[in-house]
Amino acid sequence: MSEKLSPVQLHKQWKGKIEVVSRVPVSSTEDLSVAYTPGVAEPCLEINKDYDKSFELTRRNNLVAVVTDGTAVLGLGDIGPAAAMPVMEGKCALFKTFADVDAFPICIDSKDVDTIVNTVALISKSFGGINLEDIAAPRCFEIERRLKEICDIPVFHDDQHGTAIVASAALINACKVTGKRLSEITVVVNGAGAAGMAISELLLSLGIKDLIVCDSKGIISSESSNEAKRQMALKTNKNGVFGNLSNALRGADVFIGVSAPNVVTGEMVQSMNKDAIVFAMANPIPEIMPGVAKENGAAVVGTGRSDFENQINNVLVFPGIFKGAMSVRAKDITENMKRAAAFALADFIPEDKLSAGYVLPAPFEPGVADCIAAAVAECAKKDGTARI
Amino acid sequence: MSEKLSPVQLHKQWKGKIEVVSRVPVSSTEDLSVAYTPGVAEPCLEINKDYDKSFELTRRNNLVAVVTDGTAVLGLGDIGPAAAMPVMEGKCALFKTFADVDAFPICIDSKDVDTIVNTVALISKSFGGINLEDIAAPRCFEIERRLKEICDIPVFHDDQHGTAIVASAALINACKVTGKRLSEITVVVNGAGAAGMAISELLLSLGIKDLIVCDSKGIISSESSNEAKRQMALKTNKNGVFGNLSNALRGADVFIGVSAPNVVTGEMVQSMNKDAIVFAMANPIPEIMPGVAKENGAAVVGTGRSDFENQINNVLVFPGIFKGAMSVRAKDITENMKRAAAFALADFIPEDKLSAGYVLPAPFEPGVADCIAAAVAECAKKDGTARI
Repeated sequence: MSEKLSPVQLHKQWKGKIEVVSRVPVSSTEDLSVAYTPGVAEPCLEINKDYDKSFELTRRNNLVAVVTDGTAVLGLGDIGPAAAMPVMEGKCALFKTFADVDAFPICIDSKDVDTIVNTVALISKSFGGINLEDIAAPRCFEIERRLKEICDIPVFHDDQHGTAIVASAALINACKVTGKRLSEITVVVNGAGAAGMAISELLLSLGIKDLIVCDSKGIISSESSNEAKRQMALKTNKNGVFGNLSNALRGADVFIGVSAPNVVTGEMVQSMNKDAIVFAMANPIPEIMPGVAKENGAAVVGTGRSDFENQINNVLVFPGIFKGAMSVRAKDITENMKRAAAFALADFIPEDKLSAGYVLPAPFEPGVADCIAAAVAECAKKDGTARI
Repeated sequence: MSEKLSPVQLHKQWKGKIEVVSRVPVSSTEDLSVAYTPGVAEPCLEINKDYDKSFELTRRNNLVAVVTDGTAVLGLGDIGPAAAMPVMEGKCALFKTFADVDAFPICIDSKDVDTIVNTVALISKSFGGINLEDIAAPRCFEIERRLKEICDIPVFHDDQHGTAIVASAALINACKVTGKRLSEITVVVNGAGAAGMAISELLLSLGIKDLIVCDSKGIISSESSNEAKRQMALKTNKNGVFGNLSNALRGADVFIGVSAPNVVTGEMVQSMNKDAIVFAMANPIPEIMPGVAKENGAAVVGTGRSDFENQINNVLVFPGIFKGAMSVRAKDITENMKRAAAFALADFIPEDKLSAGYVLPAPFEPGVADCIAAAVAECAKKDGTARI
């Protein structure tokens, strides 16, 4: 009998989780003369005449770079580019498995914003999209902003926007289940890093009017020394609540945690509004265990874990987002496209199937990526960012 | 009946000549927990502790970056990074087909040496080797030299060294056929770009004592304004021959052309030594047509073309070179490894099969890449550049 292998043993056996294969036959002189010299000169010249043809005649049409500097890898922190690779390869395997999108990992050996931006920009014409991954905040904000300006392909920091979209979809459906309205609820986001900020931005753009953002020290202040937090404080917390997470949660409808284990108590959930919605996404130990949240009055609970109901997992989003964007050769992923993805993911579950224990599809439900891709592609066309 | 499709039509149909696939199953929650979070943290930490583990636990063990700036693509010249991609994808397809080596194209949007060097160095920890491709001379020399210094993986400019190795192997066997000795022959290399310079360097290191290098203006001079040519002139042309290609060829044993169509006449071949060896590698029109060379006394003739005997084609070399180097996790490709590859390729043809019309195997003869890989790996171990 074979013993169960550890992840390290399995990785040794796999010798890499991705592979680059040929899509064309190269088994005769004639094959060579078309796929390589001299025939290949013709597609080269076509692209040289008309740059957009590169999306038609090369793998750019379906190819994402998964880019990291290795500074915020899982919960491991700054482990550098070589050590980050197993995660990046895993991400690429997910892209292929969930949406038939080719993805290739690029780990950059620098922590300097200018260097990272330049490196990605310089190689971006080999790809149809850029997925930024596991880059520490606040550096990740500037890197994404600048790359979006420079590159003519979609740039998407999944830790921010993938998380924001999947959490938003869960919230949209949790509101349907509890009879709450997006425009009337009070939401508390705990965590003001990459994910927390992006969730907050997307919720505001979805019409959430009362939003309070906390970091580990409590409700963020418009006098914070952190530029991103200061900006966020200015457009949130409309009632000027002071204090810590506990103060913020009093009377709130929704808790969304991208923070730390066990920071929410049963009493805090009790202090929330009736039919509270609790998304405790800290991994692997959530801000509050689902059972405890429910015992204390939560109506809908989600976590990042696969062993509880309502797993709030980015893998529901990023494959479909890029598939949709690249299917129309989009130049960008716009705010509208993110909102469209959130609504498409929420609407994936028919109303009659929706329940407190089922506000999001499971990662392996077929059709999720295609559903999101269709909505994102349609939105890209409306927004004028689609090339075709 | 279907009509024959043009290369552009085929490229449109193919939608890219390479594809990135997953090597691991990701079809259940359990799969996900090993290939991705949380299990993937273990191999990440292993690499973080011991950098060399990256060659064991990720695809680095078998992955080459095919890097270009798009400045010297085929005979097309400077067509830029996007238009260069069909050639780079083709090259990657050849790597996979001929040696089961994964290769991924990276087209860099810059012509600046510092920028290209930095970009490649910054992403080099995602790869097990760097194949430089279609970068114009003289820039290519400095880029390769500096990257070899910086990177801890093999860096190899195929247009230089692949060409040099395959031409050397052909010459070694042509000497066997004609009874000439490497140490006694006079060789004329016509073309002083990337390929011509590398061929000349390798021939010198193989023990060729009398070598004359010409460019389009004639025999290169030790007073050339081009640094590389000046250096080469100082160590070649031991008899101080002056003049043009015609002067150089008088009494020479070997012509190796990496230059331009039709620059060698029948009279020039007649002026060469008995049993002349003529490798006319200009593509697609050689320096002299094989029939004409033979009519005028050439004993062995090779070209770059598949429709004549003795096709001198890099594809015989680069897949095996990288396969061998990566099989021992080599840090470099040394001069010894290049020589070992040339002799291994020559020795691939048993003496009793060798003839004037068969000094090199055909590209599709099975076993060529493995034969070169074995010799290169063994040499890397002797040279101390192998990690295992």
